[in-house]
Amino acid sequence: MLDVFFRKLLWGGLLAACLPAFSVPQTGRQQAQQCATCHGLQGLAIMANTPHLAGQPDVYLIEQLKAFRNGQRQHAIMSLIAKPLSDAEIENLAQWFSSQQIEIKQ
Amino acid sequence: MLDVFFRKLLWGGLLAACLPAFSVPQTGRQQAQQCATCHGLQGLAIMANTPHLAGQPDVYLIEQLKAFRNGQRQHAIMSLIAKPLSDAEIENLAQWFSSQQIEIKQ
Repeated sequence: MLDVFFRKLLWGGLLAACLPAFSVPQTGRQQAQQCATCHGLQGLAIMANTPHLAGQPDVYLIEQLKAFRNGQRQHAIMSLIAKPLSDAEIENLAQWFSSQQIEIKQ
Repeated sequence: MLDVFFRKLLWGGLLAACLPAFSVPQTGRQQAQQCATCHGLQGLAIMANTPHLAGQPDVYLIEQLKAFRNGQRQHAIMSLIAKPLSDAEIENLAQWFSSQQIEIKQ
């Protein structure tokens, strides 16, 4: 009986330890709904003149979103979209798009 | 005999008509050697904080390179790299990277 209890405790602990690793991209995935119209939910852009975000390094995405937010980089739509984003939201979005691994079609 | 001559003429004409479509990305490929250290020859970036260029829409790449060239977009390295590029060089580079089709790894 006690053995079952400890086994459950162990699995629960392992699950709790792993959750943050999965939850951040998932939070980003939800936030990325607002990006999907132009960039696609996974970051493969649908519209012309719109960059693919899938697989871009998160450091790059964070830097660009912050540059749009503070006006250092200008774009009619992105300057508006980025303005209200918090640091945490920017990081979640970056991690979501960055987690989509890309390859060149053979 | 005349039939063979006209057939050759036809194939030669077709080949000549198709060549520009193939040669532009190849010219871009040669020019892309200077981008390869950071962005990879095919546009899959090697360095952190460096965007992948593979598969990006050519319109987007042209706009960004021109923005770096005219100072509208600033970056320590890219502002220097883009400055001497002609419109034709920018278009060739954009077409080369744009021609690398990407997909998300399953």
